[in-house]
Amino acid sequence: MSGRIDWLEDHVPGTKVMAGTVEFSAEEIIGFASAYDPQYFHTDPVAAEKSQFGGLIASGWHTMAKIMKVVSGRAVAMGGKGFIVSPGFEDLRWQRPVRPGDVLQVWIEVIDVVPSASKPDRGLVIQRFSAVNQNGETVCSVTGKVFFKRRGQP
Amino acid sequence: MSGRIDWLEDHVPGTKVMAGTVEFSAEEIIGFASAYDPQYFHTDPVAAEKSQFGGLIASGWHTMAKIMKVVSGRAVAMGGKGFIVSPGFEDLRWQRPVRPGDVLQVWIEVIDVVPSASKPDRGLVIQRFSAVNQNGETVCSVTGKVFFKRRGQP
Repeated sequence: MSGRIDWLEDHVPGTKVMAGTVEFSAEEIIGFASAYDPQYFHTDPVAAEKSQFGGLIASGWHTMAKIMKVVSGRAVAMGGKGFIVSPGFEDLRWQRPVRPGDVLQVWIEVIDVVPSASKPDRGLVIQRFSAVNQNGETVCSVTGKVFFKRRGQP
Repeated sequence: MSGRIDWLEDHVPGTKVMAGTVEFSAEEIIGFASAYDPQYFHTDPVAAEKSQFGGLIASGWHTMAKIMKVVSGRAVAMGGKGFIVSPGFEDLRWQRPVRPGDVLQVWIEVIDVVPSASKPDRGLVIQRFSAVNQNGETVCSVTGKVFFKRRGQP
């Protein structure tokens, strides 16, 4: 999965790359959660200390969005012409809390590439996206399905 | 599922409610996508017209985040003391594009309530969240799993 990842053929099952890192500040955690996930352990650092989490943690949707920024930003940078659409994602997991100051590595593993049986111009790429914190712990992961065109298809 | 939804027992399988509505402006679509999903059909209205989507569409993660704002905001408003944690979500689907001006109804359906076999103070609530546009079309949906405490548990 080195070089361009425009097309179906550019995705090779079994390859795994570290695509980038993302950092979390308390300010950004509170900002995202205030807009989209206003639970007190995402928005109120003082109250969060008395929660089950023992402090402010990022919304799981914030973590997922920041992972996707790395994933889609990389795809754009490497071409992106072959992207068709994602029919859906599976197996979202939030294994551990994400806290202010955490730096996560974003990993992309190509699980499978499935040529379409009905449409010869395309196929489905199945990838596992995961984020690993500075202690080597996986904090969240998700399996994405994306249709890509075969090389050179308009 | 009327009244408070603090505790495991407040979730009744088979009930379905319209929990609120969310609206999308071009400005907000572009803002979210610039931060988290910078593909041109989410960020550039002119270029998006020539894409397969025929115009600007919201990032699927933006749609999901706005649905979750309604879901978690409602839980907070109705108590929220019993919330423990979500181990994960399944079956994310983006069935149709979301465009500027769209107004989505957010529906919450309780699919199942599963008391924990190992921890008698809690159980798992399985819900299907979906968003329906002004034309009656489902645009996205996801199945959420959340652990809740039984009524009155500390």
